[in-house]
Amino acid sequence: MTTPAVNINTISPRILDARYEVRGEVTVRAGRYEARLNEAKAKGEPSGLPFDHVTFCNIGNPQKLRQQPMTFVRQVCALCEYPDLMEKCPDAFFPDAIARAKRLLGSGFLTGTYSHSKGHSLIRKDVAAFITRRDGFECDEETIYCTDGASNAVRYLFDTLIRSDEKTGIMTPIPQYPLFSALLTLGAATKVPYYLNEADSWSLGIEELERAYSEAVADGVHVKAIVVINPNNPTGQMLTPERQREVVEFCIRHKLLLIADEVYQENVYAPDRRFISFRKIAHDMGEEKFSQLQIASLNSISKGFYGECGHRGGYFQIEHLPEDVHAQLYKLVSIGLCSNTVGQLVLDCLVAPPVEGDASYELYQKEKNDIIASLKRRATKLCEALNSLEGFTCALPKGSMYLFPSISLPAKAVEEAKKAGVAPDMFYCLQLVDETGICVVPGSGFGQKDGTFHFRTTFLPPEDQIDSVVESLKTFNSKFLAKYK
Amino acid sequence: MTTPAVNINTISPRILDARYEVRGEVTVRAGRYEARLNEAKAKGEPSGLPFDHVTFCNIGNPQKLRQQPMTFVRQVCALCEYPDLMEKCPDAFFPDAIARAKRLLGSGFLTGTYSHSKGHSLIRKDVAAFITRRDGFECDEETIYCTDGASNAVRYLFDTLIRSDEKTGIMTPIPQYPLFSALLTLGAATKVPYYLNEADSWSLGIEELERAYSEAVADGVHVKAIVVINPNNPTGQMLTPERQREVVEFCIRHKLLLIADEVYQENVYAPDRRFISFRKIAHDMGEEKFSQLQIASLNSISKGFYGECGHRGGYFQIEHLPEDVHAQLYKLVSIGLCSNTVGQLVLDCLVAPPVEGDASYELYQKEKNDIIASLKRRATKLCEALNSLEGFTCALPKGSMYLFPSISLPAKAVEEAKKAGVAPDMFYCLQLVDETGICVVPGSGFGQKDGTFHFRTTFLPPEDQIDSVVESLKTFNSKFLAKYK
Repeated sequence: MTTPAVNINTISPRILDARYEVRGEVTVRAGRYEARLNEAKAKGEPSGLPFDHVTFCNIGNPQKLRQQPMTFVRQVCALCEYPDLMEKCPDAFFPDAIARAKRLLGSGFLTGTYSHSKGHSLIRKDVAAFITRRDGFECDEETIYCTDGASNAVRYLFDTLIRSDEKTGIMTPIPQYPLFSALLTLGAATKVPYYLNEADSWSLGIEELERAYSEAVADGVHVKAIVVINPNNPTGQMLTPERQREVVEFCIRHKLLLIADEVYQENVYAPDRRFISFRKIAHDMGEEKFSQLQIASLNSISKGFYGECGHRGGYFQIEHLPEDVHAQLYKLVSIGLCSNTVGQLVLDCLVAPPVEGDASYELYQKEKNDIIASLKRRATKLCEALNSLEGFTCALPKGSMYLFPSISLPAKAVEEAKKAGVAPDMFYCLQLVDETGICVVPGSGFGQKDGTFHFRTTFLPPEDQIDSVVESLKTFNSKFLAKYK
Repeated sequence: MTTPAVNINTISPRILDARYEVRGEVTVRAGRYEARLNEAKAKGEPSGLPFDHVTFCNIGNPQKLRQQPMTFVRQVCALCEYPDLMEKCPDAFFPDAIARAKRLLGSGFLTGTYSHSKGHSLIRKDVAAFITRRDGFECDEETIYCTDGASNAVRYLFDTLIRSDEKTGIMTPIPQYPLFSALLTLGAATKVPYYLNEADSWSLGIEELERAYSEAVADGVHVKAIVVINPNNPTGQMLTPERQREVVEFCIRHKLLLIADEVYQENVYAPDRRFISFRKIAHDMGEEKFSQLQIASLNSISKGFYGECGHRGGYFQIEHLPEDVHAQLYKLVSIGLCSNTVGQLVLDCLVAPPVEGDASYELYQKEKNDIIASLKRRATKLCEALNSLEGFTCALPKGSMYLFPSISLPAKAVEEAKKAGVAPDMFYCLQLVDETGICVVPGSGFGQKDGTFHFRTTFLPPEDQIDSVVESLKTFNSKFLAKYK
């Protein structure tokens, strides 16, 4: 065959340039190991690998690591998928799960039909009521767009902001969740990175924001928005309310859309912290200030205590967007028709959970509290263990699902990595997965100060596996350091 | 408030330029009428509207118009969402639905976890087996990408093809499904339209393809792909195998990726036609030819007899794509993590339906045959009725879910429309929804020869409503013609 029309030289160079290490080389390798282990197991043969299972710590995918789904949520899903069950076996369900399914179906919701492009109206109403309760002031359902996970929300926002007739800039933290940088690369926008301060538990400094902003403006960039992730991915840290107010002032000062990635709002472990949305922070600064802030906040059903990743649900809610821009956003989301309905359904259960007096209330609370308590124990345990390893420093996590330890690599390892043409922390992570089956993501995939090395790991392995994960890491790390000393 | 940062003048002009009339002004208006009717009904007050319900014929959304889901599919969904049901009420399910759920769960599939970026491996295997059976030769699961509906498949393909350092051209039919033109506008690619021949039942002519191609090339456009929709949306027509072979030759001759939109492959009503995939057509032309053709074919769970639109499932399957381009596509789809798992699950049920001997087989066949027979009756009935209206001409539908009648509008109506600043067929469709609650999409949203006017209507209203839809249309049309005579 002659060179085919679609080949590596004819496709979009933006795709070649984009990076997304969360499912990059380490993960691809881990996937192959898992397939090999499964195959060997099925045949009853040895796998030839130095480990007997793969531990996926590359991604916040809790149910893959045995976290159980919320019973109420799944009962409502089953009932909406197959409403005959209400007649056939009503006793298999909590009465309030049946009532919820009836309420949704009665409002015209069907899992099999395209919904309104922005999401089913009743579900957007429930999301609006949730935000109203959370923030203590009214939220309008028309400002809510249901999406297939928060990733799609970011895509819609970036597509709206990025123009090809200017150097559109969007400020993103370093380290950051690589979705942001990947979408900026695909959109050919300018990344305007601001660095979090690792020495001060990855704090966000307003001076650093000003530096990043002014340098970009001096370069002719039209800076339009800033992404702030709170609680933070990958660092596990949280902003203080004072710092949040400063960020709001910063956005107003420079007329920036604040894109608040708040998907970890239910993942707070530090006893001295609670989640406060940027929307509430800004509103509490007074109507005059608030009215000057454009803010889009993201939420997702994939995170929190529910971890319903596969259902791909989420939303963004946006304040002070002109009506004519809303009309354009409506058109944009309409082109994809609508987000999937079951994701919307799960979202509804989570924003309007069972309340006291409901039959499923007690179990819901127990499941929720158990998961959060367990996440907290695992976060602390894994962090302490990492800090005990030679060359590791890890900030105590306050929220989210991740740890982002700094690792000091021997000069010889750095040199070998360069020879192999890979980032030094990628070099470390590849050997880690090869020898232990533990899959983490190199810090270079998130961005980091030059000369520093990290990896991101979730703290999601089941509690009975944390010890063995720690043990494997320890043994591997010692061997690695000895090898490249 | 001063002008906010994100306003109609600062957002991407590509979004302003994009059009997607399937959910455009007529639909928005219909949605408002529906809300008003519901509100009036809830209050027990008159709505003040000249109709008592809205009929959504704008979009192929069968379950919205009372088409029932396939029982087997929904049983498997309910079981995978809430596996406790297998213990709690096994008698509520067909044994083969339970077996299917166990097979999927046993393979590591969970609705709550991110799957492989391209879709769960076992499900891709099942899709590959379906294609192998359908086409009579082997399909490799690695060539399959599960997506959130076919719309997302097109987005991934276009994103891959379109470059900003050249005038990338993609050939699309006129009329066409406006997803294609909308995504080309968003990607700033060049539309290379080829016209279907209405006088010959909307046939596709190779001379017209050559004309469109050469003119684009002469304009400096790098034409990379051609979209062919078969069975056709919006015309309801089908290609003959001879014509399909000519399209394949055309693609080979000019080194074009053939993007075969085959989402209506189960929607065939003409007794003298059956669906043959472009992949099979090309393969049957001999290995030498086939090896020269790059082809991506699209399929969706939203169409066919199942109509599972809300679940947003589908896939594209691509032949002769180099490995390194597959690696780039994998990265691209990874950025969005994965398509929703329930959409994948529904897809699995449809590509691997119950077989003879399975407990649910008989019901599955009955449900399937009833839906297809009813669609066929409705297509014929509505088409005949349209042809009986003054000024209407409509080709008999052979497949898909749509009719695309030509309407001749009086000069005065055309003039009035121009004064109002809307396309003449939009003018007609707006009055139609205002007076009857029937929501169709103006032909101008799909593209048409200058000076001709059409609209697209689905033939999905329930059989007991078809008569009243026809009656309303007839009365409206007479009044409209009299008004603008």
